[in-house]
Amino acid sequence: MSYSRTIETLIAELGKLPGIGARTAERLTFHLLKAPDEEALALARAIHDIKTLIHPCKVCFNPTEGDLCSICSDESRDAGVICVVEQPKDLLSIESSGAYNGRYHVLMGAIAPLDGVEAEDLTISQLVDRVQAGGVREVILATNPTVTGDSTSLYISSLLEKFPNVRITRLARGLPAGGQIEYASKTILSDAIKDRKNL
Amino acid sequence: MSYSRTIETLIAELGKLPGIGARTAERLTFHLLKAPDEEALALARAIHDIKTLIHPCKVCFNPTEGDLCSICSDESRDAGVICVVEQPKDLLSIESSGAYNGRYHVLMGAIAPLDGVEAEDLTISQLVDRVQAGGVREVILATNPTVTGDSTSLYISSLLEKFPNVRITRLARGLPAGGQIEYASKTILSDAIKDRKNL
Repeated sequence: MSYSRTIETLIAELGKLPGIGARTAERLTFHLLKAPDEEALALARAIHDIKTLIHPCKVCFNPTEGDLCSICSDESRDAGVICVVEQPKDLLSIESSGAYNGRYHVLMGAIAPLDGVEAEDLTISQLVDRVQAGGVREVILATNPTVTGDSTSLYISSLLEKFPNVRITRLARGLPAGGQIEYASKTILSDAIKDRKNL
Repeated sequence: MSYSRTIETLIAELGKLPGIGARTAERLTFHLLKAPDEEALALARAIHDIKTLIHPCKVCFNPTEGDLCSICSDESRDAGVICVVEQPKDLLSIESSGAYNGRYHVLMGAIAPLDGVEAEDLTISQLVDRVQAGGVREVILATNPTVTGDSTSLYISSLLEKFPNVRITRLARGLPAGGQIEYASKTILSDAIKDRKNL
């Protein structure tokens, strides 16, 4: 004898989530079985809603409930600067810094041929279209400081070369504020030395 | 700016699951946002189904889709022996051993006043009713070998004392097969010595 079909199905579906193994999926299933109906059904509804109500913003691909996300529809934000990020979470992080007042463009990943992600899978052509449409003074490439992030930025900057009036920048690299030199990696230190500034 | 309301809701609902913190809930939410519609909606449906299709077996409280669970409706199983377990998972573990051919009774927890679980919250009175109805030769108390499990068993056995023809037993305690004496706890060793058997 094994679990009933309904229980097996939920264990299998939970097990597909990243970082959730078979044991955890089983534990979560039995938790949901014991949990009050309204709690479990609220979770089911929330998952349903996220797939039915949320879709990418028409302009910048940030997930949103309307046609345009709250940033693209905010007239007080500088439309002349586009900050290009890999994923919505990066956008949120930059927003929470409060240091940026332009618009965004979410790539929905980084070019990683080994993981089957090619340039066509990202929203790169839509970014080029936005720049082509005019009104853009600067594109800030804010991909992750990793091999895939850097190569994605390099690829995008090569495509944007044909717009001589658009400044292409990338986020500064160096010591993380609050960190300690003692624990900084070789790459961080070499970035910090290379890009040193006058005091 | 923060996440849109729909996204916030899902993060909050996932964060209510045991062992899922705020960061993991956020990560899972963004996974579901990126995942194919059918995958995420299958999960939502599975959670919905488990709360709407599954309910406790009328007799033994094992979760099932029908009125009776597959064990209670299996005539080949010995109805004269009832194995009392704390939760459905324990039932499954005992089933997978293949060493038992009687029926079960799922308590749906153990008495733990500090956690707010009293005897009335469990299915103990229904167990007494089953024994009272007759036809039961033995009740095996298979609660966990812990303080709460042991006290629950003790409480149940005191209630069943009024049925002199029903044998009350508990699972054997001792060294776990495959384990090493070197790593066995004091309690395991004292159980093993106390209940030693002739070779």
